[in-house]
Amino acid sequence: MKSVLIFSGGLDSTTLLYRLKNENHNVYTISFLYGQKHSKELEAAKIICSSLDVEQRIVDLTSLQPILNSALTNPNIEIPSIPAGTQFYETLKSTIVPNRNAIFLSIAAGFAQSIGANTIFYAAHHSDRGMYPDCREEFIKSFEKTVRLALDDDSFLVKAPFANIPKGEVIKIGQKLNVPFELTWSCYEGGIRHCGACSACRERNLAFEEAGIDDPTAYEKELVI
Amino acid sequence: MKSVLIFSGGLDSTTLLYRLKNENHNVYTISFLYGQKHSKELEAAKIICSSLDVEQRIVDLTSLQPILNSALTNPNIEIPSIPAGTQFYETLKSTIVPNRNAIFLSIAAGFAQSIGANTIFYAAHHSDRGMYPDCREEFIKSFEKTVRLALDDDSFLVKAPFANIPKGEVIKIGQKLNVPFELTWSCYEGGIRHCGACSACRERNLAFEEAGIDDPTAYEKELVI
Repeated sequence: MKSVLIFSGGLDSTTLLYRLKNENHNVYTISFLYGQKHSKELEAAKIICSSLDVEQRIVDLTSLQPILNSALTNPNIEIPSIPAGTQFYETLKSTIVPNRNAIFLSIAAGFAQSIGANTIFYAAHHSDRGMYPDCREEFIKSFEKTVRLALDDDSFLVKAPFANIPKGEVIKIGQKLNVPFELTWSCYEGGIRHCGACSACRERNLAFEEAGIDDPTAYEKELVI
Repeated sequence: MKSVLIFSGGLDSTTLLYRLKNENHNVYTISFLYGQKHSKELEAAKIICSSLDVEQRIVDLTSLQPILNSALTNPNIEIPSIPAGTQFYETLKSTIVPNRNAIFLSIAAGFAQSIGANTIFYAAHHSDRGMYPDCREEFIKSFEKTVRLALDDDSFLVKAPFANIPKGEVIKIGQKLNVPFELTWSCYEGGIRHCGACSACRERNLAFEEAGIDDPTAYEKELVI
C-alpha cells in the first residue's frame, strides 16, 4: 500500500519511517527546504532514505523564508538557548514557523493523490503539543476532514501515530526497530555537531533520558539536566 | 485593516482586489509560480498590482511541478480544448491541480500571521464548484476551522466572497469597479494571446456573454458559442 511520509531526518520521522517499512508500507518520503537554518537535517534524511532504499522527494520552498517569520528561518532572530534544568517543552514561541505543518501536509496530500496513495503520515508527537498547535490531535482530525473535501476523496487518511506518545516513548519504539539514532538530526542551529543548547537538542537529550537509553549524540556543549 | 489576497492576475481575483481596495482593506497580494504553463498570468498580476500600488509577493513553488500531476503543469498532458457549444463548466478533470488551493491558502495563512493580518481572501466563484472541490463552500468553511487550530487563533478568517456567485455576476461587479478586464489573464495555454479554446478561455468568454458586457479579450481563435 502506497503511503506518503513527511520526513525531516529527525528522530521522530525516522522512527516512523522504520515503523512503516516494518509494516510493509510502500513509503514515499517528502522532505522540505524552507529556509530553515538547520537544512542540514535533509542530509540526514537523504542518507537514511538511501540506506533503506526509499523513494525521496525534496521540495524546495526556500521562497517561503522571507514570508514565514520564525527564529528557525529569520537570520535576524536568534535560536533561543534553553538553560540547563529548564522545562524546555515550554520552548520559546519564536521557533514556531506559522502554519508550517498545514503547508507541508497540504503539499503531501496533493503529491499523494498524484501518485495514487491515499494516506499521508507525519511524526508529530505528544511533547510537541504544548507549543506547536499544528501538532495537536484536534488539528490533525480537522485537517483530515478538510483535505477530504479538497481532494473529493472521503477515504483519504491523515495519520500522526505518535500524536499521543511522548518523545521518550518514540525513542523506545525506535530502539526496538533498530533505528540508527546517531544518523538523525534535531538541532535547530544546523552546525557541524548538535549544539546541545537549543530546545530541539535539550528535548532530544531529555527524551533519551526518559527512555532510559544512552544518547549517542555528540553535542557541542556538555549537557547538564 | 491588513488582509492577504491570493492573486493570480485573472478576472476573478482582480475584481476581488478592486473590491477590497474599494472597501479600504490594506491588501497584501500573494501570487504563485507552481510550474503552470500559463505563468504569464503573473505578468498580468504584476502590472495590476503596480497600477494600484499594492504590495505583491511572488512565491516560487516550481519545485511542485513534478509532484502535482495536472494538464496545467505536466508538459506531457495537453490542455483540453473545449468544442464550441459545450457546457464547458463541465471542464475536464485533467486541469485539476491536486490540492492546489489548500496549498496556496495554507501559505497565505502563514504569511498573514507573520505580518499581523487575520484575514485571507481568494476568488473561488460558483462556476468553479462543479469541477474544483477546493472552490466549494464546504471546503472553505472546513479550511477556516482547520487553520484556526493550526495558528491557534480563533479569530482568523478565510473568505471567498464570490463562492456563491457565478462568474458572469463577478464580471458585473468588476465593471462597476472599473476593473481593467483587458489586463487580466485567464488562458491555460499561456501563449501570446488567449487561445480561445481551453476551458478557461471558454468560461471567460461565456461569462462576459452572461453579464451582457462586451468581451475585450483578443482571442487566437474566433469564438463561436
